[in-house]
Amino acid sequence: MRQRYVKNQDDILQSSEKYMQNPEINKGKWIENKSYKELHIEIGMGKGTFIATLAMQNKDVLYVGIEVCKPVLALAIKKIARFEEDNNVKLDNLILLDVDAKNLSDIFEKGEVDKIYLNFSDPWPKKKHEKRRLTSDSFLNVYRNILNIEGNIEFKTDNRKLFEYSIVNLNKNNVNIEYLSLDLHKEDVPNIVTEYEDKFSKLGPIYKMIFNFS
Amino acid sequence: MRQRYVKNQDDILQSSEKYMQNPEINKGKWIENKSYKELHIEIGMGKGTFIATLAMQNKDVLYVGIEVCKPVLALAIKKIARFEEDNNVKLDNLILLDVDAKNLSDIFEKGEVDKIYLNFSDPWPKKKHEKRRLTSDSFLNVYRNILNIEGNIEFKTDNRKLFEYSIVNLNKNNVNIEYLSLDLHKEDVPNIVTEYEDKFSKLGPIYKMIFNFS
Repeated sequence: MRQRYVKNQDDILQSSEKYMQNPEINKGKWIENKSYKELHIEIGMGKGTFIATLAMQNKDVLYVGIEVCKPVLALAIKKIARFEEDNNVKLDNLILLDVDAKNLSDIFEKGEVDKIYLNFSDPWPKKKHEKRRLTSDSFLNVYRNILNIEGNIEFKTDNRKLFEYSIVNLNKNNVNIEYLSLDLHKEDVPNIVTEYEDKFSKLGPIYKMIFNFS
Repeated sequence: MRQRYVKNQDDILQSSEKYMQNPEINKGKWIENKSYKELHIEIGMGKGTFIATLAMQNKDVLYVGIEVCKPVLALAIKKIARFEEDNNVKLDNLILLDVDAKNLSDIFEKGEVDKIYLNFSDPWPKKKHEKRRLTSDSFLNVYRNILNIEGNIEFKTDNRKLFEYSIVNLNKNNVNIEYLSLDLHKEDVPNIVTEYEDKFSKLGPIYKMIFNFS
């Protein structure tokens, strides 16, 4: 998603109860003394419907949505507010951050995260941009650090080249592939369809992998 | 390919110069004292056009085509004879065997094989038949044994489920995935199209992986 600027974006962020400006202060105690049993995060949450749906379905899990692009996060905040109205819910278990995924070790303690979602992240097709792909070496090292040893990562994309790259690179990094589908919409498995997924699944298969570092 | 019986199949095998009945006698000396620089094998060669094409293109490589199903091998022998006539060549560098892939360690010395091809092998879709798939644990152990440490395996299939299984199982077995394509016919890479591939690529993508044990 490309979005240069949203009018009043800083106001939108600041006025949202879900937005947190200094998440570092929560490091190591995200679900401490709270009623949540697990902490799940989505990196690159886009418009946020996926994580909002999960937050609505699982009130005992704390969800943290991360979007590095501030204008997109502002749009997500507006969209999630409408989602709450439409569904007549208040998602107290959803927090939104505008941080870069490479800095997640500043925000989450080692092993503090129970699940990570990566949905339709930017494929960065050029070889020189490989390091920006969310399944490249340095990001995998971040995930390996913050993810609980029993946790896992769910990764969906419609981009064939990104998925091919991810399989080869995960394999090279000794990551365990738990589950893999080369045409998710043909499988009889639960799936929350993102807005992007709904649109692009008409053009070709949706790929999915679940992997862990145990 | 299902083929119950070919008329005079034993006669066809016995009368072919390419067919070898006791390949064990060559173990450890397949290319010894010969002009060949490498030994390449195809497991499940079907009608044989793929390996015959390679043998025609690379006269300095010895090719061994393996087909466990004797009627299919008889058809391949007839087909390769026509291939030689049509192309006005004599493929002295092609040998054909009717052995089971699980016994390949009886035929090839440790590290003796430089490349293995697996093309459109039987997917064995039922879970109870997993052990028969050519990318299951016991077959991987056979390949690991006979393959040169610098050699690799090229695997093509049109079967999505077999390819998904293969990625997960290779990863589990600490196999190195060198190359992977989820739609080979969209790639600008050299590819010898098998008869089966030509027919089935119209119905969906052809998947390919290259992997090694180094």
